[in-house]
Amino acid sequence: QSARVLSTGRVVKQLTSLDIFFPKHDNFPDRHTAPSSREKDHMLEDLGLENMEELMLKVMPQNIRLNREMDLEAPLGEAELCERVESYGKMNKVWRSYIGMGFYNCRVPTTIMRNILENPGWTTQYTPYQPEISQGRLMGLINYQTMISDMTGLDISNASLLDEASACAESMGLCLRHNKRSRFYIDSKCHPQNIAVVQTRATGLGVETVVCDRDQMDFTDKSFTGVLLQYPDTDGAIYDLSPIVDAAHANGSLVACSTDLLALTIAKPPGEYGVDMAVGTSQRFGVPLGYGGPHAGFFSVKDEFKRLIPGRVVGVTRDAHGRQAYRLALQTREQHIRRDKATSNICTAQALLANMSAMFAVYHGPNGLRHIGQRTHQAAVLLAAGIEDAGHTVLNEIFFDTLKVKLNCSVDEVKSRAVEKKMNLRYFDDGCVGVSVDETVEQKDLNDLLWVFLSEKDLSQVTELVDADSEKIITKNVTFNRQTDYLMHPVFHRFQPETNIVRYMKHLENKDLSLVHSMIPLGSCTMKLNSTTEMMPISLPEFSQIHPFAPTDQAEGYLKLFKELEADLCEITGYDRISFQPNSGAQGEYTGLRAIKAYLESIDQYHRKVCLIPESAHGTNPASAQMAGMKIQAIKVNKHGSVDLADLEAKVKKHADKLAALMITYPSTNGVFDEEIRDICDLIHDKGGQVYLDGANMNAQVGICRPGDYGSDVSHLNLHKTFCIPHGGGGPGMGPIGVRKHLAPFLPTHPLVEPYDTTSEAFGTICAAPYGSSLILPISWAYIKMMGSRGLREATEMAILNANYMAKRLRPYYKILFTNNTGFVAHEFILDCRDFKKESGVEVIDIAKRLQDYGFHAPTMSFPVSGCLMLEPTESEDKEEIDRYCDALICIRKEIQMIVDGKLDLKRNPLKMAPHTQDDVITSNWNRPYPREMAAFPADFVRPDNKFWPSVGRIDDIYGDQNLLTKCPPMKFYESPYVVSKLRDIESVVG
Amino acid sequence: QSARVLSTGRVVKQLTSLDIFFPKHDNFPDRHTAPSSREKDHMLEDLGLENMEELMLKVMPQNIRLNREMDLEAPLGEAELCERVESYGKMNKVWRSYIGMGFYNCRVPTTIMRNILENPGWTTQYTPYQPEISQGRLMGLINYQTMISDMTGLDISNASLLDEASACAESMGLCLRHNKRSRFYIDSKCHPQNIAVVQTRATGLGVETVVCDRDQMDFTDKSFTGVLLQYPDTDGAIYDLSPIVDAAHANGSLVACSTDLLALTIAKPPGEYGVDMAVGTSQRFGVPLGYGGPHAGFFSVKDEFKRLIPGRVVGVTRDAHGRQAYRLALQTREQHIRRDKATSNICTAQALLANMSAMFAVYHGPNGLRHIGQRTHQAAVLLAAGIEDAGHTVLNEIFFDTLKVKLNCSVDEVKSRAVEKKMNLRYFDDGCVGVSVDETVEQKDLNDLLWVFLSEKDLSQVTELVDADSEKIITKNVTFNRQTDYLMHPVFHRFQPETNIVRYMKHLENKDLSLVHSMIPLGSCTMKLNSTTEMMPISLPEFSQIHPFAPTDQAEGYLKLFKELEADLCEITGYDRISFQPNSGAQGEYTGLRAIKAYLESIDQYHRKVCLIPESAHGTNPASAQMAGMKIQAIKVNKHGSVDLADLEAKVKKHADKLAALMITYPSTNGVFDEEIRDICDLIHDKGGQVYLDGANMNAQVGICRPGDYGSDVSHLNLHKTFCIPHGGGGPGMGPIGVRKHLAPFLPTHPLVEPYDTTSEAFGTICAAPYGSSLILPISWAYIKMMGSRGLREATEMAILNANYMAKRLRPYYKILFTNNTGFVAHEFILDCRDFKKESGVEVIDIAKRLQDYGFHAPTMSFPVSGCLMLEPTESEDKEEIDRYCDALICIRKEIQMIVDGKLDLKRNPLKMAPHTQDDVITSNWNRPYPREMAAFPADFVRPDNKFWPSVGRIDDIYGDQNLLTKCPPMKFYESPYVVSKLRDIESVVG
Repeated sequence: QSARVLSTGRVVKQLTSLDIFFPKHDNFPDRHTAPSSREKDHMLEDLGLENMEELMLKVMPQNIRLNREMDLEAPLGEAELCERVESYGKMNKVWRSYIGMGFYNCRVPTTIMRNILENPGWTTQYTPYQPEISQGRLMGLINYQTMISDMTGLDISNASLLDEASACAESMGLCLRHNKRSRFYIDSKCHPQNIAVVQTRATGLGVETVVCDRDQMDFTDKSFTGVLLQYPDTDGAIYDLSPIVDAAHANGSLVACSTDLLALTIAKPPGEYGVDMAVGTSQRFGVPLGYGGPHAGFFSVKDEFKRLIPGRVVGVTRDAHGRQAYRLALQTREQHIRRDKATSNICTAQALLANMSAMFAVYHGPNGLRHIGQRTHQAAVLLAAGIEDAGHTVLNEIFFDTLKVKLNCSVDEVKSRAVEKKMNLRYFDDGCVGVSVDETVEQKDLNDLLWVFLSEKDLSQVTELVDADSEKIITKNVTFNRQTDYLMHPVFHRFQPETNIVRYMKHLENKDLSLVHSMIPLGSCTMKLNSTTEMMPISLPEFSQIHPFAPTDQAEGYLKLFKELEADLCEITGYDRISFQPNSGAQGEYTGLRAIKAYLESIDQYHRKVCLIPESAHGTNPASAQMAGMKIQAIKVNKHGSVDLADLEAKVKKHADKLAALMITYPSTNGVFDEEIRDICDLIHDKGGQVYLDGANMNAQVGICRPGDYGSDVSHLNLHKTFCIPHGGGGPGMGPIGVRKHLAPFLPTHPLVEPYDTTSEAFGTICAAPYGSSLILPISWAYIKMMGSRGLREATEMAILNANYMAKRLRPYYKILFTNNTGFVAHEFILDCRDFKKESGVEVIDIAKRLQDYGFHAPTMSFPVSGCLMLEPTESEDKEEIDRYCDALICIRKEIQMIVDGKLDLKRNPLKMAPHTQDDVITSNWNRPYPREMAAFPADFVRPDNKFWPSVGRIDDIYGDQNLLTKCPPMKFYESPYVVSKLRDIESVVG
Repeated sequence: QSARVLSTGRVVKQLTSLDIFFPKHDNFPDRHTAPSSREKDHMLEDLGLENMEELMLKVMPQNIRLNREMDLEAPLGEAELCERVESYGKMNKVWRSYIGMGFYNCRVPTTIMRNILENPGWTTQYTPYQPEISQGRLMGLINYQTMISDMTGLDISNASLLDEASACAESMGLCLRHNKRSRFYIDSKCHPQNIAVVQTRATGLGVETVVCDRDQMDFTDKSFTGVLLQYPDTDGAIYDLSPIVDAAHANGSLVACSTDLLALTIAKPPGEYGVDMAVGTSQRFGVPLGYGGPHAGFFSVKDEFKRLIPGRVVGVTRDAHGRQAYRLALQTREQHIRRDKATSNICTAQALLANMSAMFAVYHGPNGLRHIGQRTHQAAVLLAAGIEDAGHTVLNEIFFDTLKVKLNCSVDEVKSRAVEKKMNLRYFDDGCVGVSVDETVEQKDLNDLLWVFLSEKDLSQVTELVDADSEKIITKNVTFNRQTDYLMHPVFHRFQPETNIVRYMKHLENKDLSLVHSMIPLGSCTMKLNSTTEMMPISLPEFSQIHPFAPTDQAEGYLKLFKELEADLCEITGYDRISFQPNSGAQGEYTGLRAIKAYLESIDQYHRKVCLIPESAHGTNPASAQMAGMKIQAIKVNKHGSVDLADLEAKVKKHADKLAALMITYPSTNGVFDEEIRDICDLIHDKGGQVYLDGANMNAQVGICRPGDYGSDVSHLNLHKTFCIPHGGGGPGMGPIGVRKHLAPFLPTHPLVEPYDTTSEAFGTICAAPYGSSLILPISWAYIKMMGSRGLREATEMAILNANYMAKRLRPYYKILFTNNTGFVAHEFILDCRDFKKESGVEVIDIAKRLQDYGFHAPTMSFPVSGCLMLEPTESEDKEEIDRYCDALICIRKEIQMIVDGKLDLKRNPLKMAPHTQDDVITSNWNRPYPREMAAFPADFVRPDNKFWPSVGRIDDIYGDQNLLTKCPPMKFYESPYVVSKLRDIESVVG
């Protein structure tokens, strides 16, 4: 165990003499947990407490406490961590990948890497629920939507999904919502992981899938809700989709097509064949492989299905002054409405990766993308010619970048040559070999590939074999050559020079409030520090450039890290196994419930289908349960925000034999540690049910109590909350699940690479990659390794102290909705804002918008209780920042009082008219009954020096939903300034 | 040669069939040179020209044209470049360094690396000549000054110098300015490179240096201007400076002390011994070794010498409204005044590195720094105990981190063990071995060092040998233990949590206008794109972690890169050799002139001392010439801005036999290609003189003419202008010189590592490191490699086209001061603003400040012609941005006309009152006779959407110089918001 003399003056006991002489340096917990010891003492004193232990006694039931330090490795310093992660990186082998199957090498432009992926101004943004201070990434996402709908030839795209495979599953969901039929065709030439994920999803929903060759599909009995195709298909073939589209449509079935964006730069897009939706991944548009993710899945549809799109859609609307603005559209159509009838539980996106991909298109423009597409295709054409010349058979008639080759020699001969060149190919079960080229392929690579396929010619000799006008070349092929333009909006034409795109990226960044500006105390979202050192591994090629289906002996560094992270998370949670496959919290819920279901079925409890869910639960809970094939039974909540025990007991009794599970969040979504959690878990177990404990609030538990100890069977862990993966402006997230031993055999598997320790009892596959978004797992691993047991526990304690201090300061001004018996909260709390409306007309949204004028992002609004705010400061904010936030809320409370007292107008007041923009206050025609200074600089700490300006006034959501526009609108931004009208008079004045 | 089908549609001739099938991708010139071909055609048409060739015929004399493509390697794509640079990196060997001598390993905090060093928002800033839009880095630099003066115990620090060795030389310069004596003592225990640089500088100035042991110094004859000491000295000894200080002061000599910041965290600082100035490097405060640089040298003095400080000093002042603000202080005291009597030509700083070091102190705070200092010291104490225990003798009585060891075995034995462990030690000529430990040392390293010194004990055993109260431990030593506090300002106490320091760095960044916001058309400074890919190498440990005095076989990658860069620069300039040692443009001038002098002396032309310099020359030219021991003769300039030939001939004739050199800038500082440059060079050569051609304007020449061809003998190349090293907010720069063959033998050498191809005729040493700021040389190398011959030429042509287009657009509104016979300019041009004053009262500074309201940085102001603006758009700005800038200037011209026409008040108008801040315009008490909108949004393209706000109103320079304050003032920023007065009333309202 290392001992430290800390810069903050804390001294660790039991120093050896060497420690005294040579104390450790570089103590990460001091960087992560913000309040100084002086501030901590001040806050404890303010709460009337002697020490942290007393706080722990007040806030939580004692019968669940861990009461020991966790058994974790001694904490690493930041420099040690970097060394460790590099050494693990060296255990991975970066071979050239020609495996394809939805994952391709690509060149991440360095300027996008530095200015977006490595820039906390982009990565630490929250989901854009406050659009007035999120216009930058919303503009980026509307570029993404424009790109997807242009490339696929469809009308409307969403702002991304989790990955290609889950997008395929969502396409089936849309079919079901549309025509309620219960069978679904899957072309056997879809990528295997897409088939697996759709099938898994189908079994949960009770849908029958039929996997067959596409020429064998028969829609005439009208039982098929739809069909999923892959174009180009998994063998690489480009083919005519029209016959299937016609057959399906003639019988009321829908057609979804999983496709490849780069192929569509030169090949006729699915939309032009008449498909109803297109899905896929935008990974190869500028996002690293990352051993499988995170990448942005996409989803585009015909206009008629726009209200059935899963996930988030960014739309254009207007603000209070009629100015153009962006925001998340159609927000109310999700789990809030469908809840226990949902066919989708998707509630996040891959915003950061979607923005990177969109910026990749902005960077290259349509000409650059077409160039890349052509070049990639022509590399494949040359390679095919060389391979055929060497005596093999290329099975694809028309292809884009992927060849399926029937060898005239043994597979082993080709394979051993490929190994010699450190190249990964795809080896089919039927003895064929697949090879997919991509943007990064150079002459040397092609020459090596020719050698691997035993060709005696080099690339320039092979060139002589190819007829430049061959119909095999897509651009010379009348059927498949893309005729339509794409990306014609100016945003894809102005930013090719690096000077321009850097300015554009910074321009967008600076519109958005993120953690680099001020605290974002989002209850249940745990917006804590995402430290730079934690982020370093994602830039290392040894982690970023590994194909998810590469042989596992090339990913030993990853596997070592996963196993360490699993062991650490098990120690933290008290569970026995972790599955890293779920790549979002909602996916984690779904995976956990499927594991429960599989377990119950394994012990012949098929009839157990009832899932109890408290009313205060997040909407994804019932949606996930429904999708896992369960029936939802709601449970009431008592005045402390806890589960109503009497109601629970009644419902347990009522469903007795049918009880499958209880889904519960702990501490509760209302921010309180239920006293009876242990009893509740026992009750469920007594009746043969399983306990699913939603891990969203793990930040209140790490180091002080463990779900696995007090009775939970499974939890998902939002690594993007408690374990420091940045929110990325609305994704990526990661939702691995922890389970107790009896559930472990049922954890998900993968058809191409079985995750380690997977058993044959696995319920299925839920993600395109075996370990989900592998590339960001080192972030959480690094956090745990640098914090150590004590650092983690102290962080939790500080998060709870910060919350209680904040609640105490605000209590004279706002009602704290829920506390426990002793009057304390956990790591978050709810301010009741419902009473203001009657006397002042002020609603919770007015407070949220007014906070923007103070330079702050609103807390969670109207969740879990409508009309309220939920605040979670986390341990990474110091007392000064917390005090500023409290000051802002107190000042706002004063403003409300001024309305009540008649000192401010009932309608034309700074709350109702918030947020205030620069053009609101910098006008000669100010006509509001309060001063400009009050609008813009409402407190002493809001100064020109640090003012963060909302880009637009209050968003008009209704207008946007009524006039849905989800592509780039014509923008003033792009008008040449040369024609500014003012200049015309100048000529006359001075000319 | 590679051929490319470019995304912009340009097609290269002579495509092979392979090229057609597999065209190259990733074409950097399209990223660097911004205007599209459509824009280019538009601009040519606007100028009435058919094509670029016609422009070349118009702008420049034909007798100097290159008329062939340069012989450079085919251009690399960005990805290829990254691969190449990584492969060179692998040729370097990163051994553990214990060499010391002013260069130490350190931990660059990852968050500072990412958010400052790798962030274009910081790196692409210009020198803060427009303080209203540069407050962020000025605040950073005042933190630096506070840190340096606190640590050294002196009153005032400057904002950094180039390196430690030149700071030593500058300390001698200050002595000379102070007491005009002509001898200077140098302690023989100074670092060898410091001695060498001071001696070289002294010979130029005619000063006699005496290097001797410090106990042999005798000041009684009062001939010594001062003395330079090193503390701790180069052997590592900490000693009492008082006796020498007393002896020197008693005789009117000054005392300078080169010192070590980390030692001063625990040891009594030089200021407390009474020294007059302290110098050194702040490298080990968070800046990578980088094979020698760039790092920030420092310079602090007693208050009485504040007006003699060399370099830049940041001072506190007030703005037009009396608000606190920062700006460069005492600016007029430099070469502008002294010019040909200067004892210093320093005109830049290492702003970026100084900011990194200051942020390192902010990050650690005084407690953290003291911890690092103690730990480092105690590592040395333990090591010393182990070494003595192993039978060797540690020669230092008291030391900080450096031991000089007399061995009881052979050096070879220790050396071979060190090699086995990949450790570099210092090997003295006398057979002793030096070892310096540092912040990064861990137990493993100390155990390895003990093994290297044949100890049989490990570190914990060695611990038992040390008495914790030994006087050898500085903190236990009554004489040397530092008693005084340091860094007590709040800025060093608030930002230890990473959340806080990230916000602080972003807060500072966002105050400063840089190239990420808009064009900065600084005439003669060539603010062009600094691309991300060019910047990538500086983050690679294989480049950043090499000690400059490491054995050269550990730097083979660097040497390969240097040689390639030399070859490329020779081909570009027509010279035969390059010296990379000069680490700024002024250093380059000085080096070139010293080489000329050495050459003339080698052919017995000692009497040639006259240096002809046109009146329009930059002030550093005469200062450098004076320092090189030359006499300056000014030459007149004609109405085209060219050298007045008649006057030149007269002066050449007058000085005939004494003529040493002509220093000339080409194209002229007035932005015109002189027609007679060839004749001028011939004339000088005819009379036995040499031509020094200032390379500041190389951006108008690359690929179209070469100084070495048309008659120049030597030039410095501002790599931070033409060759893409970012300006860093005022440094680093690099000023290597190119020379023709006859000057090559005289290029500078280095006492520790001779640069390759150095001869014994070298005139001396001018920089602490053999290759100057090695770490940034890959930037220029990458630029040339990615542009290729054609890309470079086209960039030059575009820079000239952009300038001529801009001049044409502005001509109806402003007088273009100089053009050539055909009415064209080169790559920059001067707008004459002197006539406005009479009719409107508007001066050039009003235009400069008003440009800020339009979101733009002013062009170069009053150089080379007072009252004028010099604009240089560069090739990296597209026509849209150039048009916006022109629009701004035209709108301003209109505003001037409105004053003339009486439509705006003579004093209270938007020009005189510019720039406008947020609190200027967001006030209820607007009382100016023009509207707020005109103040803040003066053109259609200045919108809330993209408005860049000056942080403060117009700076009051005089006030600041009269009330000089160069340390952090008490700041409002740090007041706890909790006590905001507004809150008090709230309590009464709602309480």
